[in-house]
Amino acid sequence: MPKLNENYLQLKDSYLFSEIAHRTAAYSEKHPDKPVIRLGIGDVTRPLCECAIKALHESVDEMGQSATFKGYGPEQGYAKTRDAIAAYYKRNGVEVDADAIFISDGAKSDTGNITELFGHDNVILIPDPVYPVYVDSNTMCGNKVTYISGNADNDFLPMPDHSQHVDVIYICSPNNPTGACYNKEQLKEWVDYALENEAVILYDSAYEAFISDPELPRSIYAIEGARKCAIEFCSLSKTAGFTGTRCGYTVVPKELVFTSSDGRKMSLNAMWNRRQSTKYNGTSYIVQNAAAAIFSEEGIKECQENLNYYKKNAKVIADTLTELQIPFYGGIHSPYIWFECPNGMDSWTCFDYLLENIQVVGTPGAGFGENGKNYFRLTSFGTYESTVEAMNRFKKLFAK
Amino acid sequence: MPKLNENYLQLKDSYLFSEIAHRTAAYSEKHPDKPVIRLGIGDVTRPLCECAIKALHESVDEMGQSATFKGYGPEQGYAKTRDAIAAYYKRNGVEVDADAIFISDGAKSDTGNITELFGHDNVILIPDPVYPVYVDSNTMCGNKVTYISGNADNDFLPMPDHSQHVDVIYICSPNNPTGACYNKEQLKEWVDYALENEAVILYDSAYEAFISDPELPRSIYAIEGARKCAIEFCSLSKTAGFTGTRCGYTVVPKELVFTSSDGRKMSLNAMWNRRQSTKYNGTSYIVQNAAAAIFSEEGIKECQENLNYYKKNAKVIADTLTELQIPFYGGIHSPYIWFECPNGMDSWTCFDYLLENIQVVGTPGAGFGENGKNYFRLTSFGTYESTVEAMNRFKKLFAK
Repeated sequence: MPKLNENYLQLKDSYLFSEIAHRTAAYSEKHPDKPVIRLGIGDVTRPLCECAIKALHESVDEMGQSATFKGYGPEQGYAKTRDAIAAYYKRNGVEVDADAIFISDGAKSDTGNITELFGHDNVILIPDPVYPVYVDSNTMCGNKVTYISGNADNDFLPMPDHSQHVDVIYICSPNNPTGACYNKEQLKEWVDYALENEAVILYDSAYEAFISDPELPRSIYAIEGARKCAIEFCSLSKTAGFTGTRCGYTVVPKELVFTSSDGRKMSLNAMWNRRQSTKYNGTSYIVQNAAAAIFSEEGIKECQENLNYYKKNAKVIADTLTELQIPFYGGIHSPYIWFECPNGMDSWTCFDYLLENIQVVGTPGAGFGENGKNYFRLTSFGTYESTVEAMNRFKKLFAK
Repeated sequence: MPKLNENYLQLKDSYLFSEIAHRTAAYSEKHPDKPVIRLGIGDVTRPLCECAIKALHESVDEMGQSATFKGYGPEQGYAKTRDAIAAYYKRNGVEVDADAIFISDGAKSDTGNITELFGHDNVILIPDPVYPVYVDSNTMCGNKVTYISGNADNDFLPMPDHSQHVDVIYICSPNNPTGACYNKEQLKEWVDYALENEAVILYDSAYEAFISDPELPRSIYAIEGARKCAIEFCSLSKTAGFTGTRCGYTVVPKELVFTSSDGRKMSLNAMWNRRQSTKYNGTSYIVQNAAAAIFSEEGIKECQENLNYYKKNAKVIADTLTELQIPFYGGIHSPYIWFECPNGMDSWTCFDYLLENIQVVGTPGAGFGENGKNYFRLTSFGTYESTVEAMNRFKKLFAK
């Protein structure tokens, strides 16, 4: 009988979104007359921009003709797409080599699969609260995780503890779920700490497109020294509404070279290349073509219109919470608003309270870690009208 | 400093296709007047069928409108696609539950990632010669591999050694690279052997669509008992020419339940579901829609026209080798023809000999394992005209 991977027995049930769906469905069945507004899941709702649609149709046509048909592409991604992303970085003031960029089907795959490149006895630092994939993917391969606390005292932007040695550091900025965003000085301190420890930073910049302050870093590579210590994951899911189209990218600089136990040099870029070449066959040609179009000047402009739509929603939520004097984080450089549950409620009590009283569905903070248990996440990905309506209901419910 | 995954140091350089490209480019540079015919790589050349193109265009249009836009889909795949695949199985006489089917971006990803579900001290049986991903993905996670020899004595269809205990068995039928295909009695022996050992069979049926004899099994589930011991991987790459479009599927029956070291029940279906939900965000909606169209009656008919084109090429190659009395395998229920290198050449010598004398590029068998070192793989994925021309050159070169 095969021995299975018993680390799976250590995983917590991933009941968060199924529990939300279950409670919402039960409520709706009992109260069919009371329509529910969903501001819970981090999924976009605006259609793909014109540039993407045009590129998709064009490449579908190519696939229908012998002369232009595309079979297997490079596992790393087509040069056209890698170059377009390198140019996008450059536009934001950051130099990234195209051959350090690997195109994938999304940041979730890459942030999950990256654990394969590491051994199992590293000190791995993961913030709490955070996107659950970092913890789960480490648990699945038997790695022990050290948590670093994000909380109101540090504005959910934890900083390094210089007395502690670490090997691998996860950072997500702008953060999911809190919406908190590191500034350059704070990120510099993380990069310096990583260099001191010879540690690797795994930097998730999936929400970088929501940053509108040019002084805030949209990439870890905006920080000096980061190319010697950081891998960056990004996604078109939020940048261009690709949650259902699927495309992301990961930057693994060639500078990331470490030494094996017997003194051999090991390059993380070469290892990721080997990993992807062995277990991945590249992202759909059609999708890569659309991704390249997204990063054209016209594509960036069109995507920005959708981003502005969501940012306007975020402002509606943020202004309401400010008016109600409910402490919150995010909502400016992020699609997420993370607020303190009013009246000392825990996050699941708050979920039920909002559902029953004003029929607004969000995400209980407890789903993102211990430090989320008194917080609640709303997203700005709904329609403008439903967001305004949800906030009007908030005002009535929480008016002092 | 992080400890990296030092198992990567045990990987052989994946130089096969790069070495082929290198030698071919060097020859072409020296002899620009002598055009090379490429029958090496297992990549299709016919365009996508009309049904697929229509479904792709339709779903692109859906993505461009708010009312029909699709964000995150189920990680396991849309019901429409899973149901279409279950119906395709049924059409071929096999019952598979739709909720045992997981849609992915291709069989390479799934055959690579499946190692994550297993512990590291299993007896893992892998045929030689075979598709290199099975060995590499096990090497990457530190698993030891036991080889089972495919050779001329067993027509490259090795059978179980009942004196040996095993936990995990890889089978690829029709085989890559040999084209050899197990019949029902042979597969039944493998299933019985797996059940005796409480082992799991990892069955790669990526080339099932090339089987034209209704007596030959196109799925492991055509064999009684297989649902209690086998996971099946399949792909639209060869079935529907999706090598650049990317879609595959994996069947993990709910009957596959094993016991952990402390006596708990572990379901491989639940584990794969958790793996995919944590590290994968589903296959592109657009691509899944095309996949569903492929498995409609009209889609199957259109795909069959392309398969017939390739099968005609395979027959041209097989007839030529028969005429030349060069022993070979495959070429009937497979796009691959695996022939014994003439005149006692080893496979790289044969590569150079064919390139220099008749400008035909194939794949040296050594790239698929020790047992391939005197064999050579040709594929039927070229154009009909180039295949005929290549075989005319064979006839002149090897005429007795």
